[in-house]
Amino acid sequence: MKIKKLGEDYIIDRIRESFETQHPRIIKSIGDDASVTAITEKRCLLLTMDSLIEGVHFDRRYTPPYYLGRKAVAISVSDIAAMGGTPLFLLTAVSMPEDTEFELVEELYRGVKDSTTEYRIHLVGGNTSRADKLSVTTTLVGEAEKQRIAYRTGARPGELIYITGTPGDSALGLEILREQGFGALEKADLKRAVLKHLNPTARTGIARALAEKGLVSAMIDTSDGLLRDLAHITEKAGLGATVVCERIPLSQEMREYHISRARKLELALTGGEDYELLFTSPPENRDAIQIMAKRFNIRITPIGTVTEEKGIKVLHMGKELSIGARQGYQHFVSP
Amino acid sequence: MKIKKLGEDYIIDRIRESFETQHPRIIKSIGDDASVTAITEKRCLLLTMDSLIEGVHFDRRYTPPYYLGRKAVAISVSDIAAMGGTPLFLLTAVSMPEDTEFELVEELYRGVKDSTTEYRIHLVGGNTSRADKLSVTTTLVGEAEKQRIAYRTGARPGELIYITGTPGDSALGLEILREQGFGALEKADLKRAVLKHLNPTARTGIARALAEKGLVSAMIDTSDGLLRDLAHITEKAGLGATVVCERIPLSQEMREYHISRARKLELALTGGEDYELLFTSPPENRDAIQIMAKRFNIRITPIGTVTEEKGIKVLHMGKELSIGARQGYQHFVSP
Repeated sequence: MKIKKLGEDYIIDRIRESFETQHPRIIKSIGDDASVTAITEKRCLLLTMDSLIEGVHFDRRYTPPYYLGRKAVAISVSDIAAMGGTPLFLLTAVSMPEDTEFELVEELYRGVKDSTTEYRIHLVGGNTSRADKLSVTTTLVGEAEKQRIAYRTGARPGELIYITGTPGDSALGLEILREQGFGALEKADLKRAVLKHLNPTARTGIARALAEKGLVSAMIDTSDGLLRDLAHITEKAGLGATVVCERIPLSQEMREYHISRARKLELALTGGEDYELLFTSPPENRDAIQIMAKRFNIRITPIGTVTEEKGIKVLHMGKELSIGARQGYQHFVSP
Repeated sequence: MKIKKLGEDYIIDRIRESFETQHPRIIKSIGDDASVTAITEKRCLLLTMDSLIEGVHFDRRYTPPYYLGRKAVAISVSDIAAMGGTPLFLLTAVSMPEDTEFELVEELYRGVKDSTTEYRIHLVGGNTSRADKLSVTTTLVGEAEKQRIAYRTGARPGELIYITGTPGDSALGLEILREQGFGALEKADLKRAVLKHLNPTARTGIARALAEKGLVSAMIDTSDGLLRDLAHITEKAGLGATVVCERIPLSQEMREYHISRARKLELALTGGEDYELLFTSPPENRDAIQIMAKRFNIRITPIGTVTEEKGIKVLHMGKELSIGARQGYQHFVSP
């Protein structure tokens, strides 16, 4: 059977099954934003690994090397953030064709450098290699207090589902880039969405604060699209969710862009690479969460509810939309 | 300037320069087999990242997926071993074309699984992704006591240079595979060299013992070839070395294979991927090192001396061979 018929989730599930392991120091293995292993009695190591591959995750025509370097760092920082952890040490494996101009390499690492400086993390190793296509794989090591780690599991029926920021903007940004090229960066009404795609920001501060205050029962970063990432939270817990379309906040850029309302909704529900936080929390935390949103000046919106009934229901004007819960980006599955 | 004109060493040096960083917890950043960061006052985290890329590091025709999985683990374990550390937690990023058969994926991870079991390490995360070519990138986390870590730097003039095993066997194994295919695995006189290439063993036990007993002043694993890895030890220390060809131990497979004596020497001096240990030690440790060799049943041979004079001299029958010190595998440099 070819893997494109099976899909990434199937493959990861099979890998996870065959590597189920018992070790006193392993608290969480494959299947969350980062793995969790014990360092001392109270402290844990968080480990995450991500790849950005030319032709799969990015198109060189729309990806300046500087931003590629920044994004490679940010998406790993986002994974550590979504666990409520502090990112610390980075390793990068960069592969590229041998006829690559050194200037591209310098630009890429300048992006890595600026991003590591901003997140106060440190590049400590990695490797470079020849390959047919450009790719950047990052490993990020973080730490967290054992008692304050936010896992994907942990949601309970009746809890509210929250999202930071405005979903779908990264996918919109890519659509704008494809239509208008880098000229879009000069346009005030488009720039923010394009930069959301090229240069996402990991929600480190607010994620850690939410986890430290015990305000999240489950948390994930939105890399695969809102619905698919929500399914990651609900499915493993044997639960479902109801999402109300009218509650999903759309950015001004999204609202004003010349695409149909249906397409906007599709981008918001299934567009990947936002690297926002999606989390669940009991209703009584509502006010505390909004106080946190104000403190960090980040929009946090309740968009639905965790349900005992499995599957993800999307309500639009009171009617259920027929959107597969797993819609969103998945590797290997052919469209 | 295209990177193939500059070479991997140049690029890594530039990256290292631009990321020179001061952080109380970073003990060793880019430039050794693994980075070293402090966990507690006495314990350190070791981090290493390696890539095996189709068409660059391996040819699918000569690389059964099971062995690819094993090798991906072993080469990272070798890096942690060469620091004198204990390998612990593994992450893998596997990329492959979407029309890959799932059986290949299963075989690859079966190799990873068997190898992790043998080294008593644990796969805790990573990712899978679509790509044009098959590749496996591994990150391995290890630990070591701060006082017992073996760095690449630390060699002093007059010290002896030692190597474990018999160098060049991996390169010989690849040559045999190219000439004779997998049939060579059925031949008693060829099998060991072929398996040395397909299925290298990291020298974990003896490396840790040598480091713990304080018997090494500098240590590296031989992944790029004896001379190039030796240069990694001497150059940063501002030193040189003399290597005596007659002292270099050749395996029975190498001695008996139908290639010229000159070619055998070339394989031993520059063939990569042996994953043996190359280390330096004061002359007075000679006996202690041989006792260790016996205990682990691993051949350890002194092959030369660290010199104050820079550059690497290779002596053959008392005459200097004209082999560039940096000869060996280097990414990006066109032959």
